[in-house]
Amino acid sequence: MRDALVAAAFRLFLERGYEQTTVDDIVALAGVGRRSFFRYFPSKEDVVFPDHERCLADMKEFLATGDDGSEPVGRVCDAARMVLRMYAENPTFSVQRYRLTKQVPGLRAYELSVVWRYERALAEYLRGRFAGRRDGTLRADVIAAAVVAAHNNALRSWLRSDGHGDAGATVDHALGYVRSAFGSPPQAPVGEGLPEDVVVVVSRRDAPLWRVVQELEAALGRG
Amino acid sequence: MRDALVAAAFRLFLERGYEQTTVDDIVALAGVGRRSFFRYFPSKEDVVFPDHERCLADMKEFLATGDDGSEPVGRVCDAARMVLRMYAENPTFSVQRYRLTKQVPGLRAYELSVVWRYERALAEYLRGRFAGRRDGTLRADVIAAAVVAAHNNALRSWLRSDGHGDAGATVDHALGYVRSAFGSPPQAPVGEGLPEDVVVVVSRRDAPLWRVVQELEAALGRG
Repeated sequence: MRDALVAAAFRLFLERGYEQTTVDDIVALAGVGRRSFFRYFPSKEDVVFPDHERCLADMKEFLATGDDGSEPVGRVCDAARMVLRMYAENPTFSVQRYRLTKQVPGLRAYELSVVWRYERALAEYLRGRFAGRRDGTLRADVIAAAVVAAHNNALRSWLRSDGHGDAGATVDHALGYVRSAFGSPPQAPVGEGLPEDVVVVVSRRDAPLWRVVQELEAALGRG
Repeated sequence: MRDALVAAAFRLFLERGYEQTTVDDIVALAGVGRRSFFRYFPSKEDVVFPDHERCLADMKEFLATGDDGSEPVGRVCDAARMVLRMYAENPTFSVQRYRLTKQVPGLRAYELSVVWRYERALAEYLRGRFAGRRDGTLRADVIAAAVVAAHNNALRSWLRSDGHGDAGATVDHALGYVRSAFGSPPQAPVGEGLPEDVVVVVSRRDAPLWRVVQELEAALGRG
């Protein structure tokens, strides 16, 4: 029933346009009543993005049940890949929706709010992992935003190519860039796997020395 | 007239709540007609954020007239500070609006779209600066998102403190984190050349700081 409603909705959106299609049109084509529609979708906008709620719930569960010994940036990258997989499961549908969303300002606003919820889920996880660290919430928010931006850059490039090419490889490459910028465990110093009395500082070669010393002081707990 | 409308709107929003205040209420209190309101503000939501359009235009102009010899990440950080200054110009108003926005979902959605426009302005600038570079658009999008996230983390922390404290210093610190992650000129052999531009220093936790800094200087070739 749910799938039939989504299929009917997209057939009409593509034929007539999104604004010109009413919920009544959709339920008439799907052969069900209005109440059935609203049982599955709070609004017409929601039928355009039928899988985000499930994906968001899956992502939160993935992060909540995670191994706390894992490297946190890698972990949120893995979580972001769940969104990519949802899109890649059905390339034709994803490309159609991408084109539709570009044309309808209301859908773009909806999409922004969805993206924001994914970003918050990643940031909340990282805030937990970085709790008690210096600048923990700052790092969490920045890394979550960078992961989402990299993922979306790659996803959009795949959608613009009409779903051809290897979406997974494109996203991996993009996330690799973020990991190269932030991959040093921000709790850096005492990686869980390291002896207590060893400190590892990973720095870009061209970072200003004062910044590296600052990190070092924080790592040594002397800041 | 414009300022009087904003003042009247906020007085009513705070007294009665945002949803309970109509445009008619606002114009009645300000002593003007409905048409005057809509000459300045397309909708009731816009009166809550009266300065973003101007700030966004100023930011775009700042970036467009910029010195192309400047370091691009530093340049977008400077652009982001323009938003902070707009908030810091009027702390009381900014704090009131922050509280209001937290309570009204429609205003949060509006704010998301505004943030997205700032982020796009920064990303477009960086895309221009990185044009022709490997992964230019990816880097541009990720850095713009990181700058916006850092700025907003600092801005929210200042707003939560009721506008006390040094907003500029808080934002500078947050942007410093982004610059330390991405500050290297993007034409530098980043990404694939990772080992080349990353320095790893391993030290005993109880080593004297001067000794570690000495090692670090040697590693960075600046000893």
